Amino acid sequence: MYFTSDNWAGVHPAISENLARHSSGMASAYGTSALDKQVEQRFNEIFEREVAVYFVGTGTAANSLALAAVNRPGGVAFCHREAHVVKDECGAPEYFTGGSRLQTVDGPSGKMKPGELRRELKSFRPDFIHAGQPMAVTITQATEVGTIYQPEEISTIAGICKEKGIPLHMDGARFANALVTLGVSPAEMTWKQGVDVLSFGGTKNGCWCAEALVFFNPEKAKDLPYIRKRAAQLFSKTRFIAAQFDAYLKDDLWLDLAKAANDKATRMAAAIQQSKHCRLAWSVESNELFPIMPETEADRWRAAGVMFHQWPVPGDLTDKVEEHEVVARLVTNFSTTDEEVEEFSKMVLAGA
Amino acid sequence: MYFTSDNWAGVHPAISENLARHSSGMASAYGTSALDKQVEQRFNEIFEREVAVYFVGTGTAANSLALAAVNRPGGVAFCHREAHVVKDECGAPEYFTGGSRLQTVDGPSGKMKPGELRRELKSFRPDFIHAGQPMAVTITQATEVGTIYQPEEISTIAGICKEKGIPLHMDGARFANALVTLGVSPAEMTWKQGVDVLSFGGTKNGCWCAEALVFFNPEKAKDLPYIRKRAAQLFSKTRFIAAQFDAYLKDDLWLDLAKAANDKATRMAAAIQQSKHCRLAWSVESNELFPIMPETEADRWRAAGVMFHQWPVPGDLTDKVEEHEVVARLVTNFSTTDEEVEEFSKMVLAGA
Amino acid sequence: MYFTSDNWAGVHPAISENLARHSSGMASAYGTSALDKQVEQRFNEIFEREVAVYFVGTGTAANSLALAAVNRPGGVAFCHREAHVVKDECGAPEYFTGGSRLQTVDGPSGKMKPGELRRELKSFRPDFIHAGQPMAVTITQATEVGTIYQPEEISTIAGICKEKGIPLHMDGARFANALVTLGVSPAEMTWKQGVDVLSFGGTKNGCWCAEALVFFNPEKAKDLPYIRKRAAQLFSKTRFIAAQFDAYLKDDLWLDLAKAANDKATRMAAAIQQSKHCRLAWSVESNELFPIMPETEADRWRAAGVMFHQWPVPGDLTDKVEEHEVVARLVTNFSTTDEEVEEFSKMVLAGA
Amino acid sequence: MYFTSDNWAGVHPAISENLARHSSGMASAYGTSALDKQVEQRFNEIFEREVAVYFVGTGTAANSLALAAVNRPGGVAFCHREAHVVKDECGAPEYFTGGSRLQTVDGPSGKMKPGELRRELKSFRPDFIHAGQPMAVTITQATEVGTIYQPEEISTIAGICKEKGIPLHMDGARFANALVTLGVSPAEMTWKQGVDVLSFGGTKNGCWCAEALVFFNPEKAKDLPYIRKRAAQLFSKTRFIAAQFDAYLKDDLWLDLAKAANDKATRMAAAIQQSKHCRLAWSVESNELFPIMPETEADRWRAAGVMFHQWPVPGDLTDKVEEHEVVARLVTNFSTTDEEVEEFSKMVLAGA
Repeated sequence: MYFTSDNWAGVHPAISENLARHSSGMASAYGTSALDKQVEQRFNEIFEREVAVYFVGTGTAANSLALAAVNRPGGVAFCHREAHVVKDECGAPEYFTGGSRLQTVDGPSGKMKPGELRRELKSFRPDFIHAGQPMAVTITQATEVGTIYQPEEISTIAGICKEKGIPLHMDGARFANALVTLGVSPAEMTWKQGVDVLSFGGTKNGCWCAEALVFFNPEKAKDLPYIRKRAAQLFSKTRFIAAQFDAYLKDDLWLDLAKAANDKATRMAAAIQQSKHCRLAWSVESNELFPIMPETEADRWRAAGVMFHQWPVPGDLTDKVEEHEVVARLVTNFSTTDEEVEEFSKMVLAGA
Repeated sequence: MYFTSDNWAGVHPAISENLARHSSGMASAYGTSALDKQVEQRFNEIFEREVAVYFVGTGTAANSLALAAVNRPGGVAFCHREAHVVKDECGAPEYFTGGSRLQTVDGPSGKMKPGELRRELKSFRPDFIHAGQPMAVTITQATEVGTIYQPEEISTIAGICKEKGIPLHMDGARFANALVTLGVSPAEMTWKQGVDVLSFGGTKNGCWCAEALVFFNPEKAKDLPYIRKRAAQLFSKTRFIAAQFDAYLKDDLWLDLAKAANDKATRMAAAIQQSKHCRLAWSVESNELFPIMPETEADRWRAAGVMFHQWPVPGDLTDKVEEHEVVARLVTNFSTTDEEVEEFSKMVLAGA
Repeated sequence: MYFTSDNWAGVHPAISENLARHSSGMASAYGTSALDKQVEQRFNEIFEREVAVYFVGTGTAANSLALAAVNRPGGVAFCHREAHVVKDECGAPEYFTGGSRLQTVDGPSGKMKPGELRRELKSFRPDFIHAGQPMAVTITQATEVGTIYQPEEISTIAGICKEKGIPLHMDGARFANALVTLGVSPAEMTWKQGVDVLSFGGTKNGCWCAEALVFFNPEKAKDLPYIRKRAAQLFSKTRFIAAQFDAYLKDDLWLDLAKAANDKATRMAAAIQQSKHCRLAWSVESNELFPIMPETEADRWRAAGVMFHQWPVPGDLTDKVEEHEVVARLVTNFSTTDEEVEEFSKMVLAGA
Repeated sequence: MYFTSDNWAGVHPAISENLARHSSGMASAYGTSALDKQVEQRFNEIFEREVAVYFVGTGTAANSLALAAVNRPGGVAFCHREAHVVKDECGAPEYFTGGSRLQTVDGPSGKMKPGELRRELKSFRPDFIHAGQPMAVTITQATEVGTIYQPEEISTIAGICKEKGIPLHMDGARFANALVTLGVSPAEMTWKQGVDVLSFGGTKNGCWCAEALVFFNPEKAKDLPYIRKRAAQLFSKTRFIAAQFDAYLKDDLWLDLAKAANDKATRMAAAIQQSKHCRLAWSVESNELFPIMPETEADRWRAAGVMFHQWPVPGDLTDKVEEHEVVARLVTNFSTTDEEVEEFSKMVLAGA
């Protein structure tokens, strides 16, 4: 039972087949082929407006180039204390921005608290250049702990950004998982709430490596071709990304895959909630589960063949996790089977 | 007749099939899967020694990270005047090294002249820090104009590097094409001549996006995991690169593909040499041809359906290219057909 | 009564006169003059060992280049939550290191708590490159809130650094002020406790702009000439810094100036402690005072002509500062007069 | 006889005295004092328009921050082949711009040839991002070989910049020396010809370390406070730079000092022109002389006590300098005496 990460999965057959279908013949390179253009057009449809789209190879690249694109001298970007950009990207955002800083903001359940954001922003006054200047806010949807910002929560944060004249970036490494939970349109989850730039992830949801940087105001993306090329993210045979997105976005495949993953997580959560030996750290809103349990219980799970990451205990859980308890992270994916869910559930309840 | 670039081609069926074969099932991420390890081991065999291998997504990434890995404060890397690193990577090497400089070195036929390298190095004296300090020499094999360094030429340049205490990097975007022309082993073309770091390219020769950074002294590569991750080049589902290399390096496929491309170029060169209306700028030693011809002849080729790049006239050709003449670049690839070669040859000779 | 900052003061007459004395005649440039060499030698004497010294123009430069000199890819430097490097240098350390990160560490009284440092360091494991890698710890002596690390506290932190194989840097913008309080030798406050690199500040204590970067192991500073020049910190007429340090370090002037400033602060602290309307946030151990008082009292001080900064309330004071109270920062300097201290004390007690 | 460099000189007494005059008393820090403001105002008068002025510590800082301020992703700045920015700043411009490139342009007498600039710019087309994008042209006035751009030459280059939509920067490390030769106003030598940004140097002409970054369109300089602070170039006691400029710009002192230096160079040139053993590489138009002579003659000069730099033979002199000949560089300064000039002239002619 592999629940280590959704990036341990392979790719969906429809995507693999489309890649094979486009593997022969000649096509112009560096993002100029007919397929590239057609998939870019597809993003316009999905977001119900003209957007500027740039394919890149990793989520770290998408996030880092998004911040590089809106960077300012002495720039400071604000993210949640547990965000992937600050915890898991080995300093890539700082590296690509030439040293701009990520300032963490507190908030429960992996979500930035608007009041805390306001408080942090107060330290940066135009007459006090020593602190640097705010240049962006970045939120993660779904968050690093699998929770989801409601549209109005996004809108509130976007409002603060507008006040301060800085753009709002959304790290959508698990964009589809959030979308199907909310049941809103891509437009409603992004620009209609005030999101300016989006990292649109496909890799964790059934692609090989397909990430897109989406600017809702194409005017603001004029330097992106240079920013992407300079960062070694302009692939020559770009149709290999375009072909993945082509299949991914066809006939709602992307939404179906995310629904499948989320559904499995929901069912696994139900088992956890019935157990006396573990409890959920946060509500399960996408495809991640964070059970808290005694180390002995975690050992039992491992012995039963469950693979998962042990999670560092974040600040807002310090009081809720007892000594000798651990926090586990389990992630489902598009290919998780009903059998795995059942086997997991039985295993959990067998301990009760 | 597509001769615009070898990166306009797709992928070889054996590679595409291997990718499909590895697309299902779970595998540990970020370069730790069994397949990753197995392909890394394959590099040891190919190079007849233990090497450190890092897969990345683009040739620009491989070159830039190679230089970042050997960088020094105020660093200066030396490359040929027409090298890809300085002409076609949008400043990526400078960006990834935090501002180290590429100093161009002259030399005919796309190859760095050892005397010119020595001359340039003389400007950099330990007691004159204002100039910066040399940190690497980088050569391209095959070169940007399709020529090839003989092993003893590489050895001569490596000797200069050793004297100065700086490493020698080889940009092997077309490594296989050079190798089959020389008919030597990978080891003989690299570390046995004194090459320290290699960008091993697969993309132009039949892969989707498969590039590897190879360090012949693994001790020197200890920080590479951080260098690669920080540069957003650590893919999560790395098996998609490993699977490409797995098929590429199996049963000499890579050498067969390169041989096929080179052979086509050789045959096309023969037609050009028979024509009275065009002549070759440099000898054809791999899969690139650079015919010089009157603009009217170039127009005739285009009208006949030949697709190619018009090439900026480099310094050493200034006296050899008349006004109203142009330099064209034609590139063959693994999938170029006999029919295309024949059609091209007929077209060329029809003008004679 | 100017207590805004010690950098509002001018320079001590002895330093000004020495500058004038060295203003005529020719001297070799870029740090190679006899005076430069002589002052460098003086640093060896002061620190009782051979050190490598590099003069720079600002404290921000000294700190940033210290970190740049010990930087590693994906590097993370640890500093106190309120440290100058992270709060007041506009991202210079991150900029000069090409994007390395400053990770803040908690601790009361402006001092890094060893246990907290250990806790933060735990997140960085060699097998988890996503977090980056520790590359330095930096402490401030005297701290940003005017307190002082005892030698054994420095030694404890240095011990943690040694365990992790990372260097310990000391930001000594107010080095002399700390030294005279402790009554130890420069060696005892630095390398004898395990400090590897020091920013030795003169500007705040009576110079115009005289800062030195001191490496206790000169072997580790070999690239510094390039690091400093590349950062635009190699002055041509370096004797203008050397002449300042020459006078500053002569006949213990630097210690006398620091003693004078500290003494004034101690006397002002006594007045504050007698007042019923204000109290000290932290003990006064160098030349800074942080009284907490009602806004109305602060207004009274201002009306009486006292100039000071209002200080953002740091985390460890949150519970100690009531609503409607503010934290003020007052800084004495080498030129603060007895009259000012008496006027201030009277003013404070007049409110009682 | 010290002719090694004008930065071997000290400071003019009027400047030294003004520094002493401003050394006592309190003044607000970080560029906000009354003296700072007054000197900034003086720049408006000198340039006959409102300008944005930023004091920095070195010429390298001024040039590098000027380029950082106008930087673009994948940016390429064009400078003369022998320019200080590319030859003598240890990569600082590339470092401060995060890896933008300096592309050298040929031209005789140390001056960029407009035709060559146009030719280089042609390689950069909006549809070919691989080459990067032009972001500035930078010229040096007086040039690195002591020659001077005529106003109409500046205007021609500025015209090319306007066509391409990129700013023109002038490195004015020897601004005053050029100005007095041309006999035009500061405005006529800069913005009236189309210069956008100026590095205004005082150090080589009688200051300790006084350099200013001048933006003729203050709107374009909005981020400069952050750019300067982040680069560690915001001094706390900025009045030490302001006081230097205050005296330097008072009663035309700066012009008088430059005239004195230039006059000495002119007289020394006359001696060289009368000698049979040496000749001038370029016409002497400011305070630098470049005699070409046999090595034996150079040895004779050295033996006679003349201190100078031997200069690397630049490309346009290759045919003019015989084997066994060397190029010397002699620089006069504000404090060069009549006696030195006479002694030098006699020495030169004694060899004839």
